[in-house]
Amino acid sequence: MGLKEECGVFGIFDIDEAAVLTTLGLHSLQHRGQEGAGIVSYDGTSFHAVKKEGLVGDNFNSAETLDKLPGRRAVGHVRYSTTGDTKITNVQPLFANLSAGGFACAHNGNLTNTHKLTKQLVQTGSIFQTTSDTEIILQLVARSRKRKTIDKIKDALSHIQGAYSLIIMTNKKLIGIKDPFGIRPLVLGKKNKAYVLASETCALDIIGAKYIRDVENGEMVIITESGLESIKIFPNSPERPCIFERIYFSRPDSIIDGNSVYTYRKNLGEQLAIENNIDADVVVPVPDSGAPAAIGYSQKSGIPFELGIIRNHYVGRTFIEPSQSIRQFGVKLKHSVNKSSIKNKRVILIDDSIVRGTTANKVVKMVFDAGAKEVHFGISSPPILHPDFYGIDTPQYSELIAANHNIEEITKIIGATSVFFLSLEGTYKAMGHETRNPKNPQFTDHCFTGDYPIDVRDILKHGNS
Amino acid sequence: MGLKEECGVFGIFDIDEAAVLTTLGLHSLQHRGQEGAGIVSYDGTSFHAVKKEGLVGDNFNSAETLDKLPGRRAVGHVRYSTTGDTKITNVQPLFANLSAGGFACAHNGNLTNTHKLTKQLVQTGSIFQTTSDTEIILQLVARSRKRKTIDKIKDALSHIQGAYSLIIMTNKKLIGIKDPFGIRPLVLGKKNKAYVLASETCALDIIGAKYIRDVENGEMVIITESGLESIKIFPNSPERPCIFERIYFSRPDSIIDGNSVYTYRKNLGEQLAIENNIDADVVVPVPDSGAPAAIGYSQKSGIPFELGIIRNHYVGRTFIEPSQSIRQFGVKLKHSVNKSSIKNKRVILIDDSIVRGTTANKVVKMVFDAGAKEVHFGISSPPILHPDFYGIDTPQYSELIAANHNIEEITKIIGATSVFFLSLEGTYKAMGHETRNPKNPQFTDHCFTGDYPIDVRDILKHGNS
Amino acid sequence: MGLKEECGVFGIFDIDEAAVLTTLGLHSLQHRGQEGAGIVSYDGTSFHAVKKEGLVGDNFNSAETLDKLPGRRAVGHVRYSTTGDTKITNVQPLFANLSAGGFACAHNGNLTNTHKLTKQLVQTGSIFQTTSDTEIILQLVARSRKRKTIDKIKDALSHIQGAYSLIIMTNKKLIGIKDPFGIRPLVLGKKNKAYVLASETCALDIIGAKYIRDVENGEMVIITESGLESIKIFPNSPERPCIFERIYFSRPDSIIDGNSVYTYRKNLGEQLAIENNIDADVVVPVPDSGAPAAIGYSQKSGIPFELGIIRNHYVGRTFIEPSQSIRQFGVKLKHSVNKSSIKNKRVILIDDSIVRGTTANKVVKMVFDAGAKEVHFGISSPPILHPDFYGIDTPQYSELIAANHNIEEITKIIGATSVFFLSLEGTYKAMGHETRNPKNPQFTDHCFTGDYPIDVRDILKHGNS
Amino acid sequence: MGLKEECGVFGIFDIDEAAVLTTLGLHSLQHRGQEGAGIVSYDGTSFHAVKKEGLVGDNFNSAETLDKLPGRRAVGHVRYSTTGDTKITNVQPLFANLSAGGFACAHNGNLTNTHKLTKQLVQTGSIFQTTSDTEIILQLVARSRKRKTIDKIKDALSHIQGAYSLIIMTNKKLIGIKDPFGIRPLVLGKKNKAYVLASETCALDIIGAKYIRDVENGEMVIITESGLESIKIFPNSPERPCIFERIYFSRPDSIIDGNSVYTYRKNLGEQLAIENNIDADVVVPVPDSGAPAAIGYSQKSGIPFELGIIRNHYVGRTFIEPSQSIRQFGVKLKHSVNKSSIKNKRVILIDDSIVRGTTANKVVKMVFDAGAKEVHFGISSPPILHPDFYGIDTPQYSELIAANHNIEEITKIIGATSVFFLSLEGTYKAMGHETRNPKNPQFTDHCFTGDYPIDVRDILKHGNS
Repeated sequence: MGLKEECGVFGIFDIDEAAVLTTLGLHSLQHRGQEGAGIVSYDGTSFHAVKKEGLVGDNFNSAETLDKLPGRRAVGHVRYSTTGDTKITNVQPLFANLSAGGFACAHNGNLTNTHKLTKQLVQTGSIFQTTSDTEIILQLVARSRKRKTIDKIKDALSHIQGAYSLIIMTNKKLIGIKDPFGIRPLVLGKKNKAYVLASETCALDIIGAKYIRDVENGEMVIITESGLESIKIFPNSPERPCIFERIYFSRPDSIIDGNSVYTYRKNLGEQLAIENNIDADVVVPVPDSGAPAAIGYSQKSGIPFELGIIRNHYVGRTFIEPSQSIRQFGVKLKHSVNKSSIKNKRVILIDDSIVRGTTANKVVKMVFDAGAKEVHFGISSPPILHPDFYGIDTPQYSELIAANHNIEEITKIIGATSVFFLSLEGTYKAMGHETRNPKNPQFTDHCFTGDYPIDVRDILKHGNS
Repeated sequence: MGLKEECGVFGIFDIDEAAVLTTLGLHSLQHRGQEGAGIVSYDGTSFHAVKKEGLVGDNFNSAETLDKLPGRRAVGHVRYSTTGDTKITNVQPLFANLSAGGFACAHNGNLTNTHKLTKQLVQTGSIFQTTSDTEIILQLVARSRKRKTIDKIKDALSHIQGAYSLIIMTNKKLIGIKDPFGIRPLVLGKKNKAYVLASETCALDIIGAKYIRDVENGEMVIITESGLESIKIFPNSPERPCIFERIYFSRPDSIIDGNSVYTYRKNLGEQLAIENNIDADVVVPVPDSGAPAAIGYSQKSGIPFELGIIRNHYVGRTFIEPSQSIRQFGVKLKHSVNKSSIKNKRVILIDDSIVRGTTANKVVKMVFDAGAKEVHFGISSPPILHPDFYGIDTPQYSELIAANHNIEEITKIIGATSVFFLSLEGTYKAMGHETRNPKNPQFTDHCFTGDYPIDVRDILKHGNS
Repeated sequence: MGLKEECGVFGIFDIDEAAVLTTLGLHSLQHRGQEGAGIVSYDGTSFHAVKKEGLVGDNFNSAETLDKLPGRRAVGHVRYSTTGDTKITNVQPLFANLSAGGFACAHNGNLTNTHKLTKQLVQTGSIFQTTSDTEIILQLVARSRKRKTIDKIKDALSHIQGAYSLIIMTNKKLIGIKDPFGIRPLVLGKKNKAYVLASETCALDIIGAKYIRDVENGEMVIITESGLESIKIFPNSPERPCIFERIYFSRPDSIIDGNSVYTYRKNLGEQLAIENNIDADVVVPVPDSGAPAAIGYSQKSGIPFELGIIRNHYVGRTFIEPSQSIRQFGVKLKHSVNKSSIKNKRVILIDDSIVRGTTANKVVKMVFDAGAKEVHFGISSPPILHPDFYGIDTPQYSELIAANHNIEEITKIIGATSVFFLSLEGTYKAMGHETRNPKNPQFTDHCFTGDYPIDVRDILKHGNS
Repeated sequence: MGLKEECGVFGIFDIDEAAVLTTLGLHSLQHRGQEGAGIVSYDGTSFHAVKKEGLVGDNFNSAETLDKLPGRRAVGHVRYSTTGDTKITNVQPLFANLSAGGFACAHNGNLTNTHKLTKQLVQTGSIFQTTSDTEIILQLVARSRKRKTIDKIKDALSHIQGAYSLIIMTNKKLIGIKDPFGIRPLVLGKKNKAYVLASETCALDIIGAKYIRDVENGEMVIITESGLESIKIFPNSPERPCIFERIYFSRPDSIIDGNSVYTYRKNLGEQLAIENNIDADVVVPVPDSGAPAAIGYSQKSGIPFELGIIRNHYVGRTFIEPSQSIRQFGVKLKHSVNKSSIKNKRVILIDDSIVRGTTANKVVKMVFDAGAKEVHFGISSPPILHPDFYGIDTPQYSELIAANHNIEEITKIIGATSVFFLSLEGTYKAMGHETRNPKNPQFTDHCFTGDYPIDVRDILKHGNS
């Protein structure tokens, strides 16, 4: 609760109404970014682009809009954060007319060596039109002296560092790429004869496409009219996907490694119950993120599961510009307590994570105000001790509650009767591993461990571009 | 699932920033109507009105808007359905400049003798500006030859029939009224020294107001600077509230008769489990309406509760104008299946009601497609055999699945392994009554029984105004 | 320069695309009101209405809008001023569902006894939805106990006083009415077999309709499928049209009494030259209103006509909300001087009227700044000494420069070398009359003479409703 | 009548509220482009940009917008035509972050060798974000290996051909540049201590700035905090400004070569009267472009000047998307005839030019329909025989009426009694030259003569970028 993903990507090659299917795919990836969405289609002759701020369903729902995106190939993107005046120019996919033709690129992740690259490119004559790190990839491809597009891309990627799952569309190809560690997800599917690339399997399900396999770390898959080709563009190394996709980001019905994300989260809740045997009357999830873990905790502990906190479904995009007098009502706009299930009860609240602790504090207060005798706050993952720089919007060290306080302090700050986290080993167990491999960790888990797989010094020095 | 309420009302008397508090109250009543919202405030000298189509949180969230609503008194309304070109004129509260001064009126319910009254009023010179039945009340008050406002209102109400909970604001008074049967809800609360009227207790909770009591059937409460006065404006008779407020409409955290609505719904689910002992592996709610009953069913039956169907939270107002090719994807835009919890399982789906059966059919198909071995569809209320005319948007007889088919046919139509409803007696038990009193039923329950408390022949003949 | 008309009206009966023709008619009457426009059409079964703030051409230019106005009959209105929050409700035609059916009414003029009538109507139960004086007519018609619509209208008009040219559309009739004095204009025309009513002949020209005759003062023309019928609804009396229609309001190409308005204005300029023989180098119109009179002055005096002041055509609706620093640049946004025609010249500026004198002052300064040696300011009408209450937006006595200052003072205030007005007799001569008939003046000319044809005490006491 | 300019530019250096003054300057240049407007300001630290489609006065009129443009330096642009989806990206000034800092560029004119340059730039890695030829200048500057900005600009300009008046703003300088022939205008002025650059002197007048001199052909003026510096960046050659600025484009009150544009146009009309002595009753301008020449014609010939055709001032941006039935009314939406001045008269219509002849045809028909006995159509410039490629939007050869027909045919096509043009020699005379110098023509006049000063083969082959 409190972390934010920075994007979802989708691409499809050679099917009627490619843009309509992309719209659906992006809609199913909406949880990965709500600030903006874009689609670029290719109709065999020209590229067409529509980019909008706001939700897919609010902006790509009319025939009028979809008629602007003709063709049997398309690539799309949902974006989390945008800032500043020129918002819309940062909405992806980014597009450039290169000498070889059009080049559209959708990116999920974050580059970590942008500062130096940008400076070099500008000094030698590149004009940047966005403040997105993704544009560096385009500029590098445009500048590459290689002759073939694939080689230009490889050339460009040889200069960049960071986490990236990319979908690129040219006038001949749809290309999917994962960074050497495979930090952000990217899956391959097929609808009839059309290949599909997407951040999660839920985007395959919504259009009735079949899941084939994950794109591998360091792999480039190239889809053309002749079919699919795969190239390993980086030396072989073990995959190390971001563990937060399972804990928090991915949609519960998406399948990762053969299991639904919902199942991993229930496992985390069960593991939490195993490690922390609390005597209580009800298990209550912090909605909606804590629900699967709370069900797991309830089933393992035998303590009844109750929807003790109700989420207001109409608050999604509401109260964007609240008056001070509304703001002071705080979390009540989003949540309310179902008093009958709480009053005079010993309550275990379950959430998937704690970042700053501010929401936890409000929820605990709300539950006590409703008459709870005890409020135990269980988190179905380890304490977040380090910020992310690979595509998750985490606050700095100074704002991470667990980086600055021990459990006793946290308990006091959020006002709970007790606070308990899942252990790192328990987390790996819930994911199906016996133990964490300290030399080659199975996951990118630096938020818990500080073990950053990619150098982040440039970004620590110059900030995120 | 599939019924729609037609409004929520809120009023507050003598407090700073009355319109801000009304905004919050309406936000918490948003589930009662999402099509439009309006607030009328009174600043001691003038009345001020803002009416908008869409959600409260999207339209009353800026200081700019709230600055247009000064004063320490306000009345507000959220509206469900609007039709035709002049939508916004039908958004309430309706307002008229009467000879005695301004008169604002917010109405939840539906009148049943509008046809004749409208005709009479127009023939003698009234000009209607809306197509809302609520305007009849205003016109009758304007025409009344009584001298005092209260008497004018009583005079007007003596001519109308139907279900109504009204909040009226004049330059001196805030008035709450319930019809003789008390069909629609209306509660009284207090925030500091300011009285509050609202459709549900959740609207008191959000502004930190204390619940005092329900307005009684046939009661008029009159709030002035001198305090609160109560008048019984209709002969004493037992209350007979709409049973659907508990089954479906009211927010789970609202309190009715001392219990949270969530508890009643869990009771319905438990009662359903008592009446229908099905052998299965998982209990899965149809989101979000079926969740409390599913938890009740699970706890009573011991069959594990799982979130087997995931609701997409971004679909709220999305895809309003879908292309045909999107529409054919149907329920998938709103729901997706968590396959791991469903595959190879015997599933009990729980929902609170079935109206037409179209959504049930899609959900059942979706669950079977995900690999369920059996799908048993349990409804935590009796079959809906008759339409409503007191403020609920039900379809006509010909579209009500249970009015036209027996259980075997329904099972076939929706494609389930089995379908089972809660009995009428079980429903009353879940509400805390030993049995239904057939002479003086404790609830307005004609949708199940055909026992209409108020004559509906005028409306059957002429249609709803 | 500086007066503002309060409306134009148009109606057409029994022709294809009646709303399209009404749009064109209103477009040609746009000079009579730019703040809002509305059209009500009747398709043989239902009435349809579209009302918009802003210009006709900006709001009624799409097939989408015009498709909302089906039928072979329509009435339309352009409106000058609107105030307050509920602007759009005041845009005409007003419409009411009366017992006899729909009733649409478009009004040009101003009623003078609204205060008392409104009070009476509200006290007996009428609910007003607008602040427009036109609604009084609707309410009186709705209340009339006469049986036939025509009689109801006559009944209603028997209670009102003021200036009015009305077009009323019911489900059977299109009705045109002029008040007893015929203060505001209304002409009758025919396009093929369809009758047309409009404020000016220019609205006939644009749709290719033939001018038949003016509606007479005190006349009601009733157009039905059987043809046209005329009733004198007031006792015979001489017509007394507003003289400002010729001096300022009507479009130069409109024909009144057999001559184009342009010709009357040229005559005024010629008469001004006859009365004031100034020695000068150039005659320059204050654009655009002064051009015809300046041409007349130039031709009569032999002094060359020059476009010495240029009007910026893009300023129409611009700078609606100017910053202070823009506002201080004043008239320069609208006008600029063509220096070559002004420098070292003795200039005669010609305008049609002076109201407050503020614009005159700015223009004179601008011309001197451009190097003029002398600036003589000629006004082609007499001094405005009294406000209007019959449909022209004039300021109060205290703001009328000529009501408070003699010519010497005015000359000083506006900074001119000299200022000269046309005499009242000269004005009548230019209109084709030998002299003003003091007992039965040929025009409503109280702005010059104080001779108000209709009692204005109610309006002086209570203000304009 | 019928030609369209492609832009106006304005820049100001070191004055309070630079953006407000730029807004005013652009407003006065609005006749040079109505489709879009943009301003870039610099506040000593950062660059700020606002770009809008539509009129200056509609889009830059609020404090809110102007507050987004802080600083004492600004450059602005009004744009004529935009096409395609991404309209707004083509609105100028274009801006790029170069290695030396921000670089804003506003361009009036048209480049003629864009095709080859674009291809070269893209092949070596430049990414174009617009379809504007102006971006080529930015890309060339970005790529230049010179060290100093001035040298980079000179380097870039050495590669381009065509007509251009540029205003460039960097973090240190405001720079004005005219192409070697000085085809498009650019003037230098001063307001207090602040230098101003603008397309025309009317933009100096509106802000009260003093005219200093024209920027010369091939000159670069560099304004810094130290003052103004001038560099001749091309070899000396005689100036050759576009003759259409005087005939048609520039505002009548702008001063060129010591005379107002209005005077040149009157001269053209006088010259036309000298060359064509027609016996007639009235001289009528085609509004508004024909008015000055018509006055000149009238004064020279002694035939009275009359406003026989009235322009509807509300048609500016109206009826953008007319229904077919409106479109067939054609020119009547814009113009109407003042019959009294036309009927039974022999009419001389005066316009400044004829391009396709379609409007002339409609106007002539309208005048005959109003009862004219004869309609002589006089054009105060020579026949347009060749298209322009230096910033004027002319149609191709096949659509230019005079390129395809002799005078007899033209007379027949437009339906006039006679048609007469001004001679080329007469045109030069009206401009103050004794005769056209055939070796070094004083004007760019290829539209009349086919004598193109700059090679246009690239543009003829590849089209305008």
